[in-house]
Amino acid sequence: MYCFNSDYTEGCHPAILEKLIATNMVQTTGYGMDAYCDEARQLVKEACNRPDADVHLLVGGTQTNLVVISAALRPHQAVLASFPSHINTHEAGAIEHGGHRVIPLHTDDGKLTASQIEAEWIKYDTDPAREHWAQPKLVYISQSTEVGSMYSKAELEALYAVCKKYGLYLFIDGARLGYALGSPDSDLTLEDVANNCDVFYIGGTKCGLLFGEAVVILNNALKPDFRSIAKQNGAILAKGRLLGIQFGVVMKNNMYIEICRHAVEQAYKVRDAFLANGFKFITESPTNQQFVILTPAQYEKLSQEFVLSLIEYLPDGNYSVRICTSWATKDEEVDRLIAMIPEL
Amino acid sequence: MYCFNSDYTEGCHPAILEKLIATNMVQTTGYGMDAYCDEARQLVKEACNRPDADVHLLVGGTQTNLVVISAALRPHQAVLASFPSHINTHEAGAIEHGGHRVIPLHTDDGKLTASQIEAEWIKYDTDPAREHWAQPKLVYISQSTEVGSMYSKAELEALYAVCKKYGLYLFIDGARLGYALGSPDSDLTLEDVANNCDVFYIGGTKCGLLFGEAVVILNNALKPDFRSIAKQNGAILAKGRLLGIQFGVVMKNNMYIEICRHAVEQAYKVRDAFLANGFKFITESPTNQQFVILTPAQYEKLSQEFVLSLIEYLPDGNYSVRICTSWATKDEEVDRLIAMIPEL
Amino acid sequence: MYCFNSDYTEGCHPAILEKLIATNMVQTTGYGMDAYCDEARQLVKEACNRPDADVHLLVGGTQTNLVVISAALRPHQAVLASFPSHINTHEAGAIEHGGHRVIPLHTDDGKLTASQIEAEWIKYDTDPAREHWAQPKLVYISQSTEVGSMYSKAELEALYAVCKKYGLYLFIDGARLGYALGSPDSDLTLEDVANNCDVFYIGGTKCGLLFGEAVVILNNALKPDFRSIAKQNGAILAKGRLLGIQFGVVMKNNMYIEICRHAVEQAYKVRDAFLANGFKFITESPTNQQFVILTPAQYEKLSQEFVLSLIEYLPDGNYSVRICTSWATKDEEVDRLIAMIPEL
Amino acid sequence: MYCFNSDYTEGCHPAILEKLIATNMVQTTGYGMDAYCDEARQLVKEACNRPDADVHLLVGGTQTNLVVISAALRPHQAVLASFPSHINTHEAGAIEHGGHRVIPLHTDDGKLTASQIEAEWIKYDTDPAREHWAQPKLVYISQSTEVGSMYSKAELEALYAVCKKYGLYLFIDGARLGYALGSPDSDLTLEDVANNCDVFYIGGTKCGLLFGEAVVILNNALKPDFRSIAKQNGAILAKGRLLGIQFGVVMKNNMYIEICRHAVEQAYKVRDAFLANGFKFITESPTNQQFVILTPAQYEKLSQEFVLSLIEYLPDGNYSVRICTSWATKDEEVDRLIAMIPEL
Repeated sequence: MYCFNSDYTEGCHPAILEKLIATNMVQTTGYGMDAYCDEARQLVKEACNRPDADVHLLVGGTQTNLVVISAALRPHQAVLASFPSHINTHEAGAIEHGGHRVIPLHTDDGKLTASQIEAEWIKYDTDPAREHWAQPKLVYISQSTEVGSMYSKAELEALYAVCKKYGLYLFIDGARLGYALGSPDSDLTLEDVANNCDVFYIGGTKCGLLFGEAVVILNNALKPDFRSIAKQNGAILAKGRLLGIQFGVVMKNNMYIEICRHAVEQAYKVRDAFLANGFKFITESPTNQQFVILTPAQYEKLSQEFVLSLIEYLPDGNYSVRICTSWATKDEEVDRLIAMIPEL
Repeated sequence: MYCFNSDYTEGCHPAILEKLIATNMVQTTGYGMDAYCDEARQLVKEACNRPDADVHLLVGGTQTNLVVISAALRPHQAVLASFPSHINTHEAGAIEHGGHRVIPLHTDDGKLTASQIEAEWIKYDTDPAREHWAQPKLVYISQSTEVGSMYSKAELEALYAVCKKYGLYLFIDGARLGYALGSPDSDLTLEDVANNCDVFYIGGTKCGLLFGEAVVILNNALKPDFRSIAKQNGAILAKGRLLGIQFGVVMKNNMYIEICRHAVEQAYKVRDAFLANGFKFITESPTNQQFVILTPAQYEKLSQEFVLSLIEYLPDGNYSVRICTSWATKDEEVDRLIAMIPEL
Repeated sequence: MYCFNSDYTEGCHPAILEKLIATNMVQTTGYGMDAYCDEARQLVKEACNRPDADVHLLVGGTQTNLVVISAALRPHQAVLASFPSHINTHEAGAIEHGGHRVIPLHTDDGKLTASQIEAEWIKYDTDPAREHWAQPKLVYISQSTEVGSMYSKAELEALYAVCKKYGLYLFIDGARLGYALGSPDSDLTLEDVANNCDVFYIGGTKCGLLFGEAVVILNNALKPDFRSIAKQNGAILAKGRLLGIQFGVVMKNNMYIEICRHAVEQAYKVRDAFLANGFKFITESPTNQQFVILTPAQYEKLSQEFVLSLIEYLPDGNYSVRICTSWATKDEEVDRLIAMIPEL
Repeated sequence: MYCFNSDYTEGCHPAILEKLIATNMVQTTGYGMDAYCDEARQLVKEACNRPDADVHLLVGGTQTNLVVISAALRPHQAVLASFPSHINTHEAGAIEHGGHRVIPLHTDDGKLTASQIEAEWIKYDTDPAREHWAQPKLVYISQSTEVGSMYSKAELEALYAVCKKYGLYLFIDGARLGYALGSPDSDLTLEDVANNCDVFYIGGTKCGLLFGEAVVILNNALKPDFRSIAKQNGAILAKGRLLGIQFGVVMKNNMYIEICRHAVEQAYKVRDAFLANGFKFITESPTNQQFVILTPAQYEKLSQEFVLSLIEYLPDGNYSVRICTSWATKDEEVDRLIAMIPEL
């Protein structure tokens, strides 16, 4: 059995492990104030070409979402997010526990549009009794999205322009940012991302690290006392060096994007094989997650050899099945999977 | 100009005012521990025929919703409510500020159905990773609803049966309970309400009191330390007697329902006049709120004589306009309104 | 039996009641957007000589404290308050429920000092790991205090100077502000109060109204979206007019202070009679609350005629007993109490 | 320069690192549902001799404290803790952010006593207006404490007996549990700990792991939906296996306690050397943290060779300095430190 069900089934990329081994007995101060973290933060700023950014290294995605949102919003302010967004689904109500409403918006492809955001703001702002409503203040998007799609540069610029126009924050959940930036179909650079939002993060957990998310704060209004907010949410790792060491490895030589690019290329091979055999997909995905439609029998057959992720029972009786690649995906397993497709 | 825009445009029913005047200089202890409150709580229990109930007198509706939900739920637990429900719209995110997600559900007529609730629970409960989701635990409904509709006895029994089956709480926002119980088309008694939910409240603010909502807790699990939770939310009125005195008046001789019945009868006169002249309504309402569809010109014309509530700009260019009656609505003003309808 | 146990044992001052009666059937819009509220807010601004202030009319003290603090602070920020302060004792953890630590500080007389605040800030600010601590940001004081003392003009100016020096907010709980401003020993005017803090409130509940607290926001940073925060906490009264009407009465012709002055004069008569008979007090109080030390037998004897408030069992076996006067205290009852003192 | 300032200056014990290396490319499911976590949880239950316990593997101490307390308490309930306790000092107000008051209690030696807890409960419970107070419900203690002391078996039994008597929860923060159980002066076993509280944790971060805290829930009332609460607080590590692997190593063969015992022995050598040279300590500590009193000059001199932790400026001008040992402390560095002491 080989796992294609998610992109965090292994430990970490061997290069990271090596560095953890090499530094294990070095003594450092705690809580991210060590030299490894300093270096990692510097590398992130350089990769973004934003020396003015504040960079913070946190442990996981849900944690990062709740810390960023807690730092950004006053109590009556809410988050605009798509229905399938991570904060509206798989975070057990973390944002609401922090006191903020998530206002779910319709999406067909996992993405929000600038005009959608504008309409939501205007609806709120023009209500003569607007103080009776939660105030939309932060727009949360994922890049790549939970359904495998990704924003183009033009889409992102349009979103950010609307946010700036109405004083909204744009926050990009980059848990899978590497798989977007590494997609052969992407027209975005890391620098573009940094220049088109108020805060985002470079996801490590799903992109080759043991764990870790690097928050990049561009908007000065979001910088003060961020560490206090993180500490208050239990998000400051005592041995913060572990984060600095890991990001220090992948932020050098474009490694973060390169290893993700490899994963997307593997995903494309799988996608193309399904397409060539007439299968359909839930969405067209240019990233490492492919949502293919299988009959129960097809799913059963594939599941005898591979662990897959059954996402949804479709109304017509078929299944939406996620196939996920990563930095660790082996060529021979991709080949073995592809070989089975014509026989399904 | 006469106001038909809401049911809280005046002070209070004259009988209540009289009692407030008569008792003004009587000395009592504070925080609802006085004899007037004791009497009011007793009267509520008798009217519900539930001597086992706990009754608490709070000040307003949003406050009551947030206190009840704070008392009922653990942090990861969420509320199921319709999209147009008060807690999902006009409470500025109060429930989320208290830490809980409101899961909005589709409705055509403002009401939730038993099968909808069952489906939501099963979707959660059968997810192998259910701990990644906010847990549906409390079902919030309004009687009468925000769009004027009301639950029948059968509908309410079905909802409560599903809730009990799956360990969910059923909470009825009764801000306008009087207008449901007083509707000529209602088949529900106050006793029926009490026997078909875990907690509800008898709304005073919109039904003739200066202010006040009487919470009736039926489920023993929701009783402990309710006053602590209320105090913590600033919901224990120092001169609690004011609540006891007011509810003491209306809970005698069925006055609460009688004055609301009169309001619904006035609303029916208005409704019938519009219907007789070919107007359409957003929903069919058996209560004191009527949502009639007017052209902008018709709305303008009526607004020269009456204050109405413009609820929504409809896609076809028309307006959804709320006309609201109350215990205070004057016959002659209803007649004057009706007289204008044929000329619109 | 006559009650001297608190200053909110009756309804409201007759002049207020009259106005409530006279306006009862007038139709107004809700939520504090009516003409009565407009007038009351204007009167408050004039009385403070601060046309730039924002004024909001809320219902009760705990509610006001939690709303103001929720509006003022980010999640990691804390409140500095004395140990016996209302928010640290009798509010059931309301401030913490809103997410903020209350840092209790020692006091002998119920008051905080400028040097105490400075020391707390410096301790925090000079800690190299200050982000591990809750950040002191708002100083909460009560005027008059929970133990009957009051701040002089010089003390208040010193406190505010320190707050401004370190970027802290000064918030004055004025639930009993009238009894301080009305004290024969006060050197403070309402204008002085407004000019020496960031936000305060004029307490109505304990000073002659049925209920109501008028929040006065001086610092622009605290003004945005205050109504949203209030609504979110269930603190916007639907029939807000009731607050406007009441404050409209007492804010005219210095009535608010005059009726409280009368109460303090009554308290002084009681205090002087106890002193003349050799009794001791817990604190020296220039306001309407007197905390006299009685033996159990003395307390029992007085309690046969009067309701008093037993505050604390003292280590030596005696009792600390609060005697409280108000706008409603009757001369003949004060005389009757005084007459009993020599016989205790 | 060698670090004696804390017990988390290195990575992890070599045996743990080896296992992480060996398992790095093994594929597992996420979120702690893998076989390594299953094994670790089983080992913890066996070590505690409590097959009925629920065990959860979280990442860090502040995180664990806030999750456990969030799972245990209703909104009006508060925590009793010593003034120097971690939750009352170095967690940036995390518990209050979660909605709960921390009630700080006086301590001379870092420990709470059974009689103190009893007095606090009775004070609350006998107040006729107890609902105006935050309700003490959970007693939080640290073993070993923040000032190096530790509870004896008798002290712990007495505390737990009082908690059970009054329906309070006893929660032991075991961030440094190994240094207490490993102390030559301890009369407690891990089983004793498990049998004398409702919930505790076995601290990994400060006891040789890269990170990780193993929560052990004994009281059934605290078990339901604990994972939901953890997830909601961002405390479920995606690659949960990392926690399972690490605890799997140290929970075998008593390794957790053995490596901590070695650290305490090193601390004793340092302590004895200071004592032999006439130095005084802030507290008598039988664990790995020693708080010695140094003059500024002595501190400066030692600081040229060793990183120490300056904890407090004492009123007499001296410093309280923490010297901390760990599993990683080297004999030769201890010897070098000891050699300097006579020359200070």
